[in-house]
Amino acid sequence: MTPPDRSESADSGQDARVARTRADVSRAALQVLTSEGADALTHAHVAEIAGYSKTTLYTHWPSRVELIMLALDAMGEFPHQEPTGDLRADLIGELRVFRQAVTDFRLDQILSVMAQWASVDDMAAIRDRINGDGQRPIRTMLSQVFEGPRLQAATSMISGVVACPTVMFGALPDDDVIEAAVDLVLKGAR
Amino acid sequence: MTPPDRSESADSGQDARVARTRADVSRAALQVLTSEGADALTHAHVAEIAGYSKTTLYTHWPSRVELIMLALDAMGEFPHQEPTGDLRADLIGELRVFRQAVTDFRLDQILSVMAQWASVDDMAAIRDRINGDGQRPIRTMLSQVFEGPRLQAATSMISGVVACPTVMFGALPDDDVIEAAVDLVLKGAR
Repeated sequence: MTPPDRSESADSGQDARVARTRADVSRAALQVLTSEGADALTHAHVAEIAGYSKTTLYTHWPSRVELIMLALDAMGEFPHQEPTGDLRADLIGELRVFRQAVTDFRLDQILSVMAQWASVDDMAAIRDRINGDGQRPIRTMLSQVFEGPRLQAATSMISGVVACPTVMFGALPDDDVIEAAVDLVLKGAR
Repeated sequence: MTPPDRSESADSGQDARVARTRADVSRAALQVLTSEGADALTHAHVAEIAGYSKTTLYTHWPSRVELIMLALDAMGEFPHQEPTGDLRADLIGELRVFRQAVTDFRLDQILSVMAQWASVDDMAAIRDRINGDGQRPIRTMLSQVFEGPRLQAATSMISGVVACPTVMFGALPDDDVIEAAVDLVLKGAR
């Protein structure tokens, strides 16, 4: 076996350091975004929270939108509920998980910062991926009973029961509103 | 008749100047918000666009959130469509007007900047007023056939047909999706 040469070993040490820095800064940036809002997400403040120099942050992520995309990297998987096969119960369960995630992940802040920066192509791609993943289980469930424009309408409507009050009023729907929404849509499917 | 004394007259000249400055800066701030996004809405940039000094802006609106609230002041009335009495046609018409307003007023940017700053009480109040006014005609129409949690669900769902794709994907629904949504909800009402 050939031992790795010195330069490769130095490189991989370097790579590991970069990866660690990236993970640290990413977590710190997400923490700032969800606890203090997008306006607090500056190079200086994230550097302070993460324990790195401002220079390090500017070197790796020169612009503010790169810092915001880095924060979104730390979000991890969107929580979903395990489907039981009962469409009504599964839709209600998924909307309850969505409602909880609004609080746990400060989705109002995440959604608004993604919308605000969507003119940057990379951010638009990240937004489509995050929101697409978030909405997929609802769409999949509804595709059992809808297709075409009705599927698209029902998906926006069911998502809107949680998303609209969140984004428009900073409020969350009660259980009886979630159930009423699911029943309305399923009645429309018959 | 008593002529106005000198100090009163000076005051009202002063008031008129302040009102004019306010109107000019407010319009410039809204223009920056909708054409360049919330991040470009700084004292320096708005001062340049409005043709006032940075010092003037800092004197009247010391914080960034005040500048943002000032921009929202310039928005004016949200457009609505005149109801005809045909519930289905009126809901479809109102959603089309809403869809057009997303483009004309950059409602994606407006909604996201309001959500982002909602931890400031004054901004939360402004957001509730703007979004409440925006949603009222839909709610009023739906209250002909729904009440309680079903009315709340239907209002979020109908708003969500335009609001969800806008905020989540920067996309707008086609006419057939809007019509499918209205038909779904009205079928659920029977």
